[in-house]
Amino acid sequence: MRWCRFKYNDHPSFGIIEDDKIIPITGSPFEDYQRVNAEVEQNGAELLAPVIPPTFYATGRNYPEHLADRVAHGSTAPKEAWTGYRASNALVGTKHPIIIPADCPDDVEYEGELVAVIGKQAKNLTHDNAMDVVFGYTIGNDISGMSWHKNDPRPWRSKNTDTWKPMGPWIETDLDVSKAVATIRHNGKDMTEFKIDSWIFSIADVLVAITKYMTVYPGDILWMGAEGVSPYLKHGDEVEIEINGIGVLTNPVIREGM
Amino acid sequence: MRWCRFKYNDHPSFGIIEDDKIIPITGSPFEDYQRVNAEVEQNGAELLAPVIPPTFYATGRNYPEHLADRVAHGSTAPKEAWTGYRASNALVGTKHPIIIPADCPDDVEYEGELVAVIGKQAKNLTHDNAMDVVFGYTIGNDISGMSWHKNDPRPWRSKNTDTWKPMGPWIETDLDVSKAVATIRHNGKDMTEFKIDSWIFSIADVLVAITKYMTVYPGDILWMGAEGVSPYLKHGDEVEIEINGIGVLTNPVIREGM
Repeated sequence: MRWCRFKYNDHPSFGIIEDDKIIPITGSPFEDYQRVNAEVEQNGAELLAPVIPPTFYATGRNYPEHLADRVAHGSTAPKEAWTGYRASNALVGTKHPIIIPADCPDDVEYEGELVAVIGKQAKNLTHDNAMDVVFGYTIGNDISGMSWHKNDPRPWRSKNTDTWKPMGPWIETDLDVSKAVATIRHNGKDMTEFKIDSWIFSIADVLVAITKYMTVYPGDILWMGAEGVSPYLKHGDEVEIEINGIGVLTNPVIREGM
Repeated sequence: MRWCRFKYNDHPSFGIIEDDKIIPITGSPFEDYQRVNAEVEQNGAELLAPVIPPTFYATGRNYPEHLADRVAHGSTAPKEAWTGYRASNALVGTKHPIIIPADCPDDVEYEGELVAVIGKQAKNLTHDNAMDVVFGYTIGNDISGMSWHKNDPRPWRSKNTDTWKPMGPWIETDLDVSKAVATIRHNGKDMTEFKIDSWIFSIADVLVAITKYMTVYPGDILWMGAEGVSPYLKHGDEVEIEINGIGVLTNPVIREGM
Protein backbone atom coordinates (compact mmCIF):
# COMPACT_ATOMS: atom_id res chain seq x y z
CA MET A 1 0.00 0.00 0.00
CA ARG A 2 1.20 3.50 -0.83
CA TRP A 3 0.50 6.51 1.37
CA CYS A 4 1.23 10.07 0.35
CA ARG A 5 0.74 13.60 1.60
CA PHE A 6 -0.37 16.12 -0.99
CA LYS A 7 -1.94 19.51 -1.49
CA TYR A 8 -5.72 19.02 -1.56
CA ASN A 9 -7.97 22.08 -1.78
CA ASP A 10 -4.90 24.14 -0.86
CA HIS A 11 -4.27 22.23 2.40
CA PRO A 12 -1.97 19.30 3.22
CA SER A 13 -3.86 15.99 3.30
CA PHE A 14 -2.78 12.38 3.61
CA GLY A 15 -3.89 10.20 0.72
CA ILE A 16 -3.83 6.62 -0.54
CA ILE A 17 -2.28 6.02 -3.97
CA GLU A 18 -4.26 3.59 -6.11
CA ASP A 19 -3.06 3.21 -9.71
CA ASP A 20 -2.84 6.76 -11.09
CA LYS A 21 -5.28 8.23 -8.55
CA ILE A 22 -4.94 9.61 -5.01
CA ILE A 23 -7.80 9.01 -2.56
CA PRO A 24 -7.73 11.72 0.16
CA ILE A 25 -8.33 10.62 3.74
CA THR A 26 -9.31 12.36 6.95
CA GLY A 27 -7.24 11.51 10.04
CA SER A 28 -3.82 9.90 9.81
CA PRO A 29 -2.46 6.66 8.34
CA PHE A 30 -1.04 5.81 11.79
CA GLU A 31 -4.37 5.92 13.63
CA ASP A 32 -7.99 6.04 12.50
CA TYR A 33 -8.73 7.32 9.04
CA GLN A 34 -11.66 7.61 6.66
CA ARG A 35 -11.41 7.65 2.87
CA VAL A 36 -12.91 10.83 1.46
CA ASN A 37 -15.44 10.21 -1.32
CA ALA A 38 -13.20 11.80 -3.94
CA GLU A 39 -10.19 11.04 -6.11
CA VAL A 40 -7.45 13.20 -7.55
CA GLU A 41 -5.27 12.48 -10.59
CA GLN A 42 -1.77 11.70 -9.32
CA ASN A 43 -0.39 13.35 -12.42
CA GLY A 44 -0.52 17.04 -11.60
CA ALA A 45 -0.98 16.63 -7.83
CA GLU A 46 1.64 18.37 -5.66
CA LEU A 47 3.21 15.69 -3.47
CA LEU A 48 4.52 16.93 -0.11
CA ALA A 49 6.97 15.27 2.29
CA PRO A 50 4.87 12.19 3.17
CA VAL A 51 4.92 12.84 6.93
CA ILE A 52 6.01 15.62 9.30
CA PRO A 53 7.52 13.64 12.19
CA PRO A 54 7.32 14.30 15.93
CA THR A 55 11.03 13.40 15.98
CA PHE A 56 13.33 13.22 12.98
CA TYR A 57 16.07 10.63 13.65
CA ALA A 58 19.01 10.19 11.29
CA THR A 59 21.89 7.81 11.73
CA GLY A 60 25.07 8.35 9.70
CA ARG A 61 28.50 6.98 8.81
CA ASN A 62 26.52 3.79 8.24
CA TYR A 63 27.94 2.37 4.97
CA PRO A 64 31.54 1.18 4.53
CA GLU A 65 32.87 3.48 1.78
CA HIS A 66 31.06 6.53 3.15
CA LEU A 67 32.40 5.81 6.63
CA ALA A 68 35.95 5.40 5.30
CA ASP A 69 35.69 8.81 3.63
CA ARG A 70 34.38 10.47 6.79
CA VAL A 71 37.06 8.87 8.95
CA ALA A 72 39.67 10.11 6.45
CA HIS A 73 38.24 13.59 7.09
CA GLY A 74 38.54 13.33 10.88
CA SER A 75 35.23 11.76 12.02
CA THR A 76 35.24 8.77 14.35
CA ALA A 77 33.78 5.39 13.43
CA PRO A 78 30.70 4.74 15.61
CA LYS A 79 31.24 1.67 17.80
CA GLU A 80 27.54 1.10 18.40
CA ALA A 81 24.26 1.98 16.69
CA TRP A 82 23.33 5.61 17.42
CA THR A 83 21.30 8.49 16.08
CA GLY A 84 21.56 12.12 15.11
CA TYR A 85 18.67 14.51 14.58
CA ARG A 86 17.36 16.64 11.75
CA ALA A 87 14.68 19.36 11.82
CA SER A 88 11.25 19.22 10.17
CA ASN A 89 11.45 22.75 8.71
CA ALA A 90 13.90 21.32 6.15
CA LEU A 91 11.49 18.70 4.73
CA VAL A 92 10.10 19.13 1.22
CA GLY A 93 8.51 16.65 -1.20
CA THR A 94 9.62 15.33 -4.56
CA LYS A 95 10.00 17.91 -7.36
CA HIS A 96 10.46 20.73 -4.82
CA PRO A 97 13.70 22.67 -5.41
CA ILE A 98 16.68 22.31 -3.07
CA ILE A 99 17.60 25.96 -2.46
CA ILE A 100 21.21 26.84 -1.62
CA PRO A 101 21.43 30.18 0.24
CA ALA A 102 23.51 32.87 -1.46
CA ASP A 103 26.10 32.93 1.36
CA CYS A 104 26.58 29.14 1.49
CA PRO A 105 30.02 27.86 0.42
CA ASP A 106 30.14 25.67 -2.73
CA ASP A 107 30.70 22.34 -0.98
CA VAL A 108 27.06 21.17 -0.75
CA GLU A 109 26.66 17.40 -0.92
CA TYR A 110 23.71 14.99 -1.27
CA GLU A 111 23.09 11.53 0.19
CA GLY A 112 20.32 9.23 -1.03
CA GLU A 113 19.00 6.98 1.70
CA LEU A 114 16.23 4.71 2.92
CA VAL A 115 13.83 6.17 5.48
CA ALA A 116 11.87 3.98 7.91
CA VAL A 117 8.56 5.46 9.08
CA ILE A 118 7.47 4.46 12.60
CA GLY A 119 3.85 3.40 13.11
CA LYS A 120 3.62 2.60 16.83
CA GLN A 121 4.65 4.02 20.18
CA ALA A 122 7.39 1.83 21.64
CA LYS A 123 10.27 1.64 24.09
CA ASN A 124 12.82 -1.08 24.90
CA LEU A 125 12.45 -2.85 21.55
CA THR A 126 14.37 -6.07 20.95
CA HIS A 127 15.70 -7.59 17.73
CA ASP A 128 12.66 -9.89 17.83
CA ASN A 129 10.05 -7.12 17.77
CA ALA A 130 11.80 -3.96 16.51
CA MET A 131 10.60 -4.29 12.92
CA ASP A 132 6.97 -4.58 14.10
CA VAL A 133 6.92 -0.82 14.72
CA VAL A 134 7.96 0.06 11.15
CA PHE A 135 4.89 1.28 9.25
CA GLY A 136 6.60 1.69 5.88
CA TYR A 137 9.47 3.16 3.88
CA THR A 138 10.26 6.23 1.88
CA ILE A 139 13.36 7.89 0.39
CA GLY A 140 15.40 10.79 1.77
CA ASN A 141 18.06 13.08 0.33
CA ASP A 142 20.30 14.38 3.11
CA ILE A 143 21.77 17.67 1.84
CA SER A 144 24.81 18.97 3.77
CA GLY A 145 26.91 22.11 3.54
CA MET A 146 30.31 20.67 4.36
CA SER A 147 32.15 23.90 5.31
CA TRP A 148 29.32 24.86 7.63
CA HIS A 149 29.28 21.31 8.99
CA LYS A 150 32.98 21.49 9.77
CA ASN A 151 33.04 25.00 11.26
CA ASP A 152 29.74 25.45 13.15
CA PRO A 153 29.49 24.36 16.82
CA ARG A 154 26.80 21.77 15.86
CA PRO A 155 25.07 20.72 12.65
CA TRP A 156 22.26 23.27 12.28
CA ARG A 157 22.28 25.21 8.98
CA SER A 158 24.75 22.63 7.58
CA LYS A 159 21.98 20.04 7.72
CA ASN A 160 18.67 21.82 8.44
CA THR A 161 18.47 24.78 6.07
CA ASP A 162 14.95 25.01 4.59
CA THR A 163 14.48 22.55 1.63
CA TRP A 164 17.61 20.53 2.53
CA LYS A 165 15.73 17.36 3.47
CA PRO A 166 13.73 16.24 0.42
CA MET A 167 11.68 13.15 1.30
CA GLY A 168 9.25 11.08 -0.76
CA PRO A 169 7.68 10.49 -3.13
CA TRP A 170 5.41 8.47 -0.82
CA ILE A 171 5.44 5.79 1.92
CA GLU A 172 5.45 2.19 0.67
CA THR A 173 4.27 -0.26 3.32
CA ASP A 174 5.33 -3.42 1.45
CA LEU A 175 9.07 -3.39 0.82
CA ASP A 176 11.49 -6.30 0.90
CA VAL A 177 14.48 -4.40 2.30
CA SER A 178 16.79 -7.32 1.53
CA LYS A 179 16.14 -6.77 -2.20
CA ALA A 180 16.16 -2.97 -2.16
CA VAL A 181 18.88 -1.16 -4.12
CA ALA A 182 19.42 2.62 -4.16
CA THR A 183 20.44 4.24 -7.43
CA ILE A 184 21.58 7.88 -7.26
CA ARG A 185 21.54 9.96 -10.45
CA HIS A 186 23.04 13.42 -10.77
CA ASN A 187 21.89 15.29 -13.89
CA GLY A 188 20.69 11.99 -15.34
CA LYS A 189 24.02 10.18 -14.83
CA ASP A 190 24.24 7.12 -12.55
CA MET A 191 26.62 8.07 -9.75
CA THR A 192 26.23 5.45 -7.01
CA GLU A 193 24.34 2.20 -6.64
CA PHE A 194 24.24 0.28 -3.38
CA LYS A 195 22.30 -2.47 -1.70
CA ILE A 196 20.31 -0.91 1.12
CA ASP A 197 21.17 -3.72 3.55
CA SER A 198 24.91 -3.30 3.01
CA TRP A 199 24.61 -0.91 5.97
CA ILE A 200 26.74 -1.32 9.09
CA PHE A 201 23.80 -0.98 11.51
CA SER A 202 20.33 -2.16 10.39
CA ILE A 203 17.01 -0.49 11.15
CA ALA A 204 16.47 -3.03 13.95
CA ASP A 205 19.97 -2.32 15.36
CA VAL A 206 19.23 1.41 15.52
CA LEU A 207 15.71 0.97 16.94
CA VAL A 208 16.96 -1.38 19.66
CA ALA A 209 19.73 1.09 20.55
CA ILE A 210 17.63 4.24 20.66
CA THR A 211 14.53 2.77 22.34
CA LYS A 212 16.70 1.66 25.24
CA TYR A 213 16.54 5.38 26.19
CA MET A 214 13.92 7.03 24.01
CA THR A 215 10.26 6.36 23.25
CA VAL A 216 9.45 6.38 19.52
CA TYR A 217 6.04 7.61 18.35
CA PRO A 218 3.79 7.12 15.30
CA GLY A 219 5.08 9.31 12.46
CA ASP A 220 8.68 9.45 13.71
CA ILE A 221 11.15 8.91 10.89
CA LEU A 222 14.56 7.26 10.86
CA TRP A 223 16.96 8.07 8.01
CA MET A 224 19.47 5.26 7.55
CA GLY A 225 22.48 6.91 5.91
CA ALA A 226 24.04 6.59 2.48
CA GLU A 227 26.89 4.86 0.68
CA GLY A 228 29.55 6.66 -1.36
CA VAL A 229 30.64 10.27 -1.54
CA SER A 230 28.84 12.90 -3.58
CA PRO A 231 30.27 15.64 -5.78
CA TYR A 232 29.11 19.19 -5.03
CA LEU A 233 25.72 20.49 -6.15
CA LYS A 234 25.43 23.57 -8.30
CA HIS A 235 22.64 25.78 -9.62
CA GLY A 236 20.60 24.01 -12.32
CA ASP A 237 21.47 20.45 -11.19
CA GLU A 238 18.93 17.69 -10.58
CA VAL A 239 19.28 14.76 -8.18
CA GLU A 240 17.20 11.58 -8.50
CA ILE A 241 17.22 8.87 -5.87
CA GLU A 242 15.52 5.63 -6.85
CA ILE A 243 14.90 2.70 -4.53
CA ASN A 244 13.30 -0.22 -6.33
CA GLY A 245 10.01 -1.13 -4.71
CA ILE A 246 9.43 2.46 -3.55
CA GLY A 247 9.92 4.89 -6.44
CA VAL A 248 11.97 7.95 -7.35
CA LEU A 249 12.64 11.13 -5.36
CA THR A 250 13.60 13.92 -7.80
CA ASN A 251 14.70 17.43 -6.85
CA PRO A 252 16.14 20.30 -8.87
CA VAL A 253 18.79 22.57 -7.35
CA ILE A 254 18.66 26.36 -7.22
CA ARG A 255 21.28 28.69 -5.81
CA GLU A 256 19.73 31.88 -4.46
CA GLY A 257 20.70 34.97 -6.42
CA MET A 258 21.50 33.07 -9.65
CA MET B 1 -1.69 35.57 30.53
CA ARG B 2 -0.70 32.03 31.54
CA TRP B 3 -1.17 29.02 29.25
CA CYS B 4 -0.69 25.45 30.36
CA ARG B 5 -1.08 21.95 29.04
CA PHE B 6 -2.60 19.47 31.46
CA LYS B 7 -4.33 16.12 31.73
CA TYR B 8 -8.06 16.71 31.28
CA ASN B 9 -10.39 13.72 31.18
CA ASP B 10 -7.27 11.56 30.69
CA HIS B 11 -6.17 13.44 27.55
CA PRO B 12 -3.69 16.32 27.06
CA SER B 13 -5.46 19.68 26.72
CA PHE B 14 -4.28 23.26 26.57
CA GLY B 15 -5.71 25.48 29.28
CA ILE B 16 -5.73 29.05 30.55
CA ILE B 17 -4.66 29.61 34.17
CA GLU B 18 -6.86 32.10 36.02
CA ASP B 19 -6.15 32.46 39.76
CA ASP B 20 -6.21 28.91 41.12
CA LYS B 21 -8.32 27.50 38.27
CA ILE B 22 -7.53 26.10 34.81
CA ILE B 23 -10.00 26.76 31.97
CA PRO B 24 -9.62 24.04 29.30
CA ILE B 25 -9.70 25.16 25.67
CA THR B 26 -10.26 23.45 22.35
CA GLY B 27 -7.77 24.23 19.59
CA SER B 28 -4.37 25.74 20.28
CA PRO B 29 -3.13 28.94 21.93
CA PHE B 30 -1.23 29.75 18.72
CA GLU B 31 -4.29 29.72 16.45
CA ASP B 32 -8.04 29.70 17.03
CA TYR B 33 -9.27 28.45 20.35
CA GLN B 34 -12.49 28.25 22.32
CA ARG B 35 -12.79 28.22 26.11
CA VAL B 36 -14.54 25.08 27.30
CA ASN B 37 -17.40 25.77 29.69
CA ALA B 38 -15.61 24.12 32.61
CA GLU B 39 -12.91 24.81 35.17
CA VAL B 40 -10.46 22.59 36.98
CA GLU B 41 -8.70 23.25 40.29
CA GLN B 42 -5.04 23.93 39.53
CA ASN B 43 -4.15 22.25 42.79
CA GLY B 44 -4.23 18.56 41.92
CA ALA B 45 -4.16 18.97 38.14
CA GLU B 46 -1.31 17.16 36.35
CA LEU B 47 0.62 19.80 34.41
CA LEU B 48 2.35 18.51 31.26
CA ALA B 49 5.15 20.09 29.23
CA PRO B 50 3.26 23.22 28.07
CA VAL B 51 3.82 22.58 24.34
CA ILE B 52 5.15 19.77 22.14
CA PRO B 53 7.10 21.71 19.50
CA PRO B 54 7.40 21.05 15.76
CA THR B 55 11.11 21.86 16.22
CA PHE B 56 12.99 21.98 19.51
CA TYR B 57 15.85 24.49 19.25
CA ALA B 58 18.45 24.87 21.99
CA THR B 59 21.41 27.16 21.96
CA GLY B 60 24.26 26.54 24.41
CA ARG B 61 27.57 27.82 25.79
CA ASN B 62 25.61 31.07 26.07
CA TYR B 63 26.60 32.46 29.51
CA PRO B 64 30.15 33.56 30.44
CA GLU B 65 31.01 31.22 33.35
CA HIS B 66 29.33 28.23 31.74
CA LEU B 67 31.16 28.91 28.47
CA ALA B 68 34.50 29.22 30.28
CA ASP B 69 33.92 25.82 31.89
CA ARG B 70 33.01 24.19 28.57
CA VAL B 71 36.02 25.72 26.81
CA ALA B 72 38.22 24.42 29.65
CA HIS B 73 36.81 20.97 28.81
CA GLY B 74 37.62 21.22 25.09
CA SER B 75 34.57 22.87 23.50
CA THR B 76 34.98 25.86 21.21
CA ALA B 77 33.49 29.29 21.94
CA PRO B 78 30.75 30.00 19.37
CA LYS B 79 31.67 33.04 17.27
CA GLU B 80 28.10 33.72 16.15
CA ALA B 81 24.60 32.93 17.40
CA TRP B 82 23.69 29.33 16.54
CA THR B 83 21.42 26.49 17.57
CA GLY B 84 21.45 22.86 18.56
CA TYR B 85 18.46 20.55 18.69
CA ARG B 86 16.73 18.45 21.29
CA ALA B 87 13.99 15.80 20.84
CA SER B 88 10.37 16.04 21.99
CA ASN B 89 10.29 12.51 23.46
CA ALA B 90 12.39 13.87 26.35
CA LEU B 91 9.87 16.56 27.41
CA VAL B 92 7.99 16.17 30.70
CA GLY B 93 6.16 18.69 32.87
CA THR B 94 6.81 20.00 36.36
CA LYS B 95 6.72 17.41 39.18
CA HIS B 96 7.47 14.58 36.74
CA PRO B 97 10.56 12.57 37.76
CA ILE B 98 13.84 12.84 35.86
CA ILE B 99 14.74 9.18 35.38
CA ILE B 100 18.42 8.20 35.05
CA PRO B 101 18.82 4.85 33.24
CA ALA B 102 20.56 2.10 35.19
CA ASP B 103 23.51 1.97 32.76
CA CYS B 104 24.10 5.74 32.72
CA PRO B 105 27.39 6.95 34.26
CA ASP B 106 27.12 9.14 37.39
CA ASP B 107 28.00 12.45 35.76
CA VAL B 108 24.48 13.70 35.02
CA GLU B 109 24.14 17.50 35.13
CA TYR B 110 21.24 19.98 35.08
CA GLU B 111 20.91 23.45 33.55
CA GLY B 112 18.05 25.81 34.37
CA GLU B 113 17.19 28.09 31.49
CA LEU B 114 14.68 30.43 29.90
CA VAL B 115 12.62 29.01 27.03
CA ALA B 116 11.07 31.24 24.35
CA VAL B 117 7.91 29.84 22.72
CA ILE B 118 7.35 30.89 19.09
CA GLY B 119 3.85 32.03 18.08
CA LYS B 120 4.17 32.83 14.37
CA GLN B 121 5.62 31.38 11.20
CA ALA B 122 8.59 33.49 10.14
CA LYS B 123 11.80 33.60 8.12
CA ASN B 124 14.49 36.27 7.68
CA LEU B 125 13.71 38.05 10.94
CA THR B 126 15.62 41.24 11.81
CA HIS B 127 16.52 42.72 15.19
CA ASP B 128 13.59 45.09 14.68
CA ASN B 129 10.91 42.40 14.36
CA ALA B 130 12.39 39.18 15.86
CA MET B 131 10.71 39.53 19.25
CA ASP B 132 7.28 39.93 17.56
CA VAL B 133 7.22 36.15 16.92
CA VAL B 134 7.74 35.26 20.61
CA PHE B 135 4.41 34.13 22.07
CA GLY B 136 5.61 33.68 25.64
CA TYR B 137 8.14 32.16 28.01
CA THR B 138 8.59 29.06 30.10
CA ILE B 139 11.40 27.32 32.01
CA GLY B 140 13.54 24.37 30.91
CA ASN B 141 15.90 22.02 32.70
CA ASP B 142 18.48 20.66 30.27
CA ILE B 143 19.67 17.35 31.71
CA SER B 144 22.91 15.97 30.23
CA GLY B 145 24.88 12.77 30.72
CA MET B 146 28.41 14.13 30.40
CA SER B 147 30.28 10.84 29.71
CA TRP B 148 27.76 9.94 27.03
CA HIS B 149 28.00 13.49 25.68
CA LYS B 150 31.76 13.22 25.41
CA ASN B 151 31.96 9.72 23.94
CA ASP B 152 28.95 9.34 21.61
CA PRO B 153 29.24 10.44 17.96
CA ARG B 154 26.51 13.09 18.52
CA PRO B 155 24.36 14.19 21.47
CA TRP B 156 21.47 11.70 21.45
CA ARG B 157 21.01 9.76 24.71
CA SER B 158 23.30 12.30 26.45
CA LYS B 159 20.64 14.96 25.92
CA ASN B 160 17.42 13.25 24.73
CA THR B 161 16.82 10.32 27.05
CA ASP B 162 13.12 10.17 28.04
CA THR B 163 12.31 12.64 30.91
CA TRP B 164 15.58 14.60 30.46
CA LYS B 165 13.93 17.79 29.26
CA PRO B 166 11.56 18.96 32.01
CA MET B 167 9.72 22.11 30.86
CA GLY B 168 7.09 24.25 32.57
CA PRO B 169 5.22 24.86 34.70
CA TRP B 170 3.33 26.96 32.08
CA ILE B 171 3.81 29.62 29.39
CA GLU B 172 3.75 33.22 30.63
CA THR B 173 3.01 35.70 27.85
CA ASP B 174 3.88 38.83 29.86
CA LEU B 175 7.48 38.71 31.01
CA ASP B 176 9.98 41.55 31.26
CA VAL B 177 13.08 39.58 30.28
CA SER B 178 15.34 42.46 31.39
CA LYS B 179 14.15 41.92 34.97
CA ALA B 180 14.11 38.11 34.93
CA VAL B 181 16.48 36.23 37.25
CA ALA B 182 16.91 32.45 37.36
CA THR B 183 17.42 30.80 40.74
CA ILE B 184 18.47 27.14 40.74
CA ARG B 185 17.92 25.08 43.88
CA HIS B 186 19.29 21.58 44.41
CA ASN B 187 17.68 19.74 47.33
CA GLY B 188 16.37 23.08 48.59
CA LYS B 189 19.78 24.80 48.55
CA ASP B 190 20.39 27.85 46.33
CA MET B 191 23.12 26.84 43.88
CA THR B 192 23.17 29.46 41.14
CA GLU B 193 21.44 32.75 40.52
CA PHE B 194 21.84 34.66 37.27
CA LYS B 195 20.23 37.46 35.34
CA ILE B 196 18.60 35.95 32.27
CA ASP B 197 19.85 38.73 29.99
CA SER B 198 23.47 38.20 31.04
CA TRP B 199 23.51 35.82 28.06
CA ILE B 200 26.08 36.17 25.28
CA PHE B 201 23.49 35.91 22.48
CA SER B 202 19.95 37.17 23.10
CA ILE B 203 16.72 35.58 21.87
CA ALA B 204 16.64 38.13 19.04
CA ASP B 205 20.27 37.35 18.13
CA VAL B 206 19.47 33.63 17.86
CA LEU B 207 16.20 34.16 15.96
CA VAL B 208 17.87 36.48 13.45
CA ALA B 209 20.68 33.93 12.96
CA ILE B 210 18.53 30.83 12.54
CA THR B 211 15.73 32.38 10.44
CA LYS B 212 18.30 33.42 7.89
CA TYR B 213 18.19 29.73 6.90
CA MET B 214 15.24 28.12 8.69
CA THR B 215 11.53 28.89 8.93
CA VAL B 216 10.22 28.89 12.52
CA TYR B 217 6.65 27.77 13.20
CA PRO B 218 4.02 28.31 15.92
CA GLY B 219 4.84 26.10 18.89
CA ASP B 220 8.57 25.86 18.16
CA ILE B 221 10.65 26.34 21.30
CA LEU B 222 14.05 27.92 21.80
CA TRP B 223 16.02 27.05 24.96
CA MET B 224 18.51 29.78 25.76
CA GLY B 225 21.23 28.06 27.79
CA ALA B 226 22.31 28.36 31.43
CA GLU B 227 24.91 30.01 33.61
CA GLY B 228 27.21 28.16 35.99
CA VAL B 229 28.17 24.51 36.32
CA SER B 230 26.04 21.93 38.08
CA PRO B 231 27.07 19.17 40.46
CA TYR B 232 25.93 15.65 39.53
CA LEU B 233 22.39 14.43 40.17
CA LYS B 234 21.72 11.35 42.26
CA HIS B 235 18.73 9.23 43.18
CA GLY B 236 16.38 11.07 45.56
CA ASP B 237 17.50 14.59 44.57
CA GLU B 238 15.14 17.40 43.62
CA VAL B 239 15.88 20.33 41.29
CA GLU B 240 13.87 23.55 41.35
CA ILE B 241 14.32 26.26 38.75
CA GLU B 242 12.59 29.53 39.48
CA ILE B 243 12.38 32.48 37.12
CA ASN B 244 10.61 35.45 38.70
CA GLY B 245 7.60 36.43 36.61
CA ILE B 246 7.09 32.86 35.38
CA GLY B 247 7.12 30.42 38.31
CA VAL B 248 8.95 27.32 39.48
CA LEU B 249 9.81 24.12 37.60
CA THR B 250 10.35 21.31 40.13
CA ASN B 251 11.47 17.78 39.34
CA PRO B 252 12.54 14.88 41.55
CA VAL B 253 15.32 12.53 40.39
CA ILE B 254 15.11 8.75 40.23
CA ARG B 255 17.86 6.35 39.19
CA GLU B 256 16.42 3.19 37.63
CA GLY B 257 17.02 0.10 39.69
CA MET B 258 17.40 1.98 43.01
